[in-house]
Amino acid sequence: MDIRIDLERLRADIEALAKFGRDLRGGISRPSFSQADFEAQAWLKERICEAELCYRRDGAGNTFGRLGGDGRAVLVGSHIDTVINGGAFDGAVGVLAGLECLRQVKETGRALAKPLELVSFTDEEGNLVGDFLGSRAFVGRLNKDEVEKGVTSFGRPLKDILAGTEFSPETILAAHKGRPEFEAYLELHIEQGATLETEDVPIGVVERIAGKTYRQCSFVGKADHGGTTPLELRQDAFLATADFALKGTRLVATQHYGSMITIGKVTVHPGSFSVVPGKVDFTLDVRSASGETLETLDRELLTLAEDVASTRGVSFHSRIIDKTVPAALSARIIGAIEEECRRLGYASMRITSGAGHDAQIVSGLAEAGMIFIPCRDGVSHAPNEMISWEDLDKGANVLLHTLVRLAG
Amino acid sequence: MDIRIDLERLRADIEALAKFGRDLRGGISRPSFSQADFEAQAWLKERICEAELCYRRDGAGNTFGRLGGDGRAVLVGSHIDTVINGGAFDGAVGVLAGLECLRQVKETGRALAKPLELVSFTDEEGNLVGDFLGSRAFVGRLNKDEVEKGVTSFGRPLKDILAGTEFSPETILAAHKGRPEFEAYLELHIEQGATLETEDVPIGVVERIAGKTYRQCSFVGKADHGGTTPLELRQDAFLATADFALKGTRLVATQHYGSMITIGKVTVHPGSFSVVPGKVDFTLDVRSASGETLETLDRELLTLAEDVASTRGVSFHSRIIDKTVPAALSARIIGAIEEECRRLGYASMRITSGAGHDAQIVSGLAEAGMIFIPCRDGVSHAPNEMISWEDLDKGANVLLHTLVRLAG
Repeated sequence: MDIRIDLERLRADIEALAKFGRDLRGGISRPSFSQADFEAQAWLKERICEAELCYRRDGAGNTFGRLGGDGRAVLVGSHIDTVINGGAFDGAVGVLAGLECLRQVKETGRALAKPLELVSFTDEEGNLVGDFLGSRAFVGRLNKDEVEKGVTSFGRPLKDILAGTEFSPETILAAHKGRPEFEAYLELHIEQGATLETEDVPIGVVERIAGKTYRQCSFVGKADHGGTTPLELRQDAFLATADFALKGTRLVATQHYGSMITIGKVTVHPGSFSVVPGKVDFTLDVRSASGETLETLDRELLTLAEDVASTRGVSFHSRIIDKTVPAALSARIIGAIEEECRRLGYASMRITSGAGHDAQIVSGLAEAGMIFIPCRDGVSHAPNEMISWEDLDKGANVLLHTLVRLAG
Repeated sequence: MDIRIDLERLRADIEALAKFGRDLRGGISRPSFSQADFEAQAWLKERICEAELCYRRDGAGNTFGRLGGDGRAVLVGSHIDTVINGGAFDGAVGVLAGLECLRQVKETGRALAKPLELVSFTDEEGNLVGDFLGSRAFVGRLNKDEVEKGVTSFGRPLKDILAGTEFSPETILAAHKGRPEFEAYLELHIEQGATLETEDVPIGVVERIAGKTYRQCSFVGKADHGGTTPLELRQDAFLATADFALKGTRLVATQHYGSMITIGKVTVHPGSFSVVPGKVDFTLDVRSASGETLETLDRELLTLAEDVASTRGVSFHSRIIDKTVPAALSARIIGAIEEECRRLGYASMRITSGAGHDAQIVSGLAEAGMIFIPCRDGVSHAPNEMISWEDLDKGANVLLHTLVRLAG
């Protein structure tokens, strides 16, 4: 079994794709349905056709390249859209390594029992109307309203962005109807964290993908003159937020180790040098690999916020903006990946993904597996996102051999 | 001694002045050198001339109305500029009660040993280039650069705002040269805090005006993916800010009771839902009636910030934006105000002003005194700033009788 990916060809593909959507700030801005994305999709189509795979694009913009005839396929892929001013590897690595795997199977003439199908999902990054538009369309789990009335993160309605393209809310909502039969999904991705690098292990075998709860929160107190209002009479919404942030972080760190809490966006009103903050709006991003922990944490954090509010004479308000449930990946595929790592002589470790992935969505329909490779300093979603080509070689070969095993 | 102010006339003046600079949000926006301010100044000039006081305006836009001949005057006044969307009483009460006092002295034909002079100082609120432009010009303590190169809080250079008016950096810097000789300054003002209201006392006799240190600060950590970066590996600049805000407030409340600390303006970078804050910029407003405490506090807070930074793996940076030293008001004038309160039968209490006032600046040149009246719920710098007319009657009569005593 001496089949191997061609690292130079894969690297050339990654570097070619990285040219679409160059951002002046040094990174790549290639949201789905942007001009840069249409150009990148045209380039990807050429690569798929050149490899003599059967090209297809569904109504949600998901791109496919099939190798083999009828029957339940093994899917492999990821996404090629990026965050604004993101990097060249998040997503791209999974699609292009998947393409390289199919090319190797085709070129070596290896006969497999099941068809293989490359997939590149639309808008994994959620630049449009929430994360995972493409994979959610694929599994048929899109909400009609969010597609028809959704406003993108750029402030334009999705409808307007689709106008003049071959896509529309209707084609997106109907995309799952033409879905091929498939029995497994495999995705190679950069870790977007520093665990593999810290442990010096080239392959992460993802066991679970964390779920998350996004809340938009506010503490409302009273704006007062900062020179004349005694400290004990203040209803300072910023101090309430500070208190909640520290206690909430301590709660997660001590009671739910491994779960995550991030307060990333904070707006202080009225926001003047000498005025006690009367209101603070902030986001609360909580993640856990356990659905039960996620529910418990959400409850405990709301109770904590109410306690802080009542102690500090302010009020607390919040609403859920987005919620995904944690996904357990297939034990059979985890075993297959680990077996191939052993055979290839690559160290591997099981890992939980804190970031969300299309595999999480697809795992609702069929067995799914994910392979992580390290990214330098854990940096992702940034211009300086980087990998080692040697790690990519290992990760792509594990992907190839696992695919062959699953389809074989 | 049955001289009394005419409350109805004073109230009518306050209500008339409040019509200049009406803000659609419900308050008054009348920064110095705005169109609304020029109209208000024209109205004030009419009132001064109508009262047969000697009108004059200096090169800094400070307006005067003199009663009596040569000699060292007793000044009385405040300011008529407002913050953006502020109230009708902060400043206006002092200028218009002063005007009413001079009208009463004139109309009752009372002979005084010393001249009285009304003054309305330019830009007490610091909408232009720092607080107290007018009174600092008056005492000759302006920095040449801040006037010539200063950019206002509206983002336009002061020079541009003055273009086409009778004022210029040169006239502002030369304003103190024509300053009249004076031996005392008296100012009536709303408290801008809730002490008098809470204690149910109509007259506050200001002993000291707090000094302040304004710092612009930053904690700089590292922006990371909120889903994948373990809590213990984060360098979260927001948690550092939260920690500093809580510990700093506790330090002031427990070790320097009566001093003030306010973190009023906070900007979190990059400010995204799922990104650990890599940098937080925030303002630090520290006030104390004691110059020594202010120095100690500034030192202690910087040490605290460095401690928080080193514990949390971030760095701390700060620079002073503005600094005023605390002012002790004249013991002789404090005694005179208290004596008049007793004679008029009004309860009074000594009080420290947490807010800054022109009296603080003028006290560097001559004896200064301040009389406070309550404002409803301690609210100031807001559309719902309000007073009781009965309290104003008491405050203005104390002002009148103290003036007569000082000039008599």
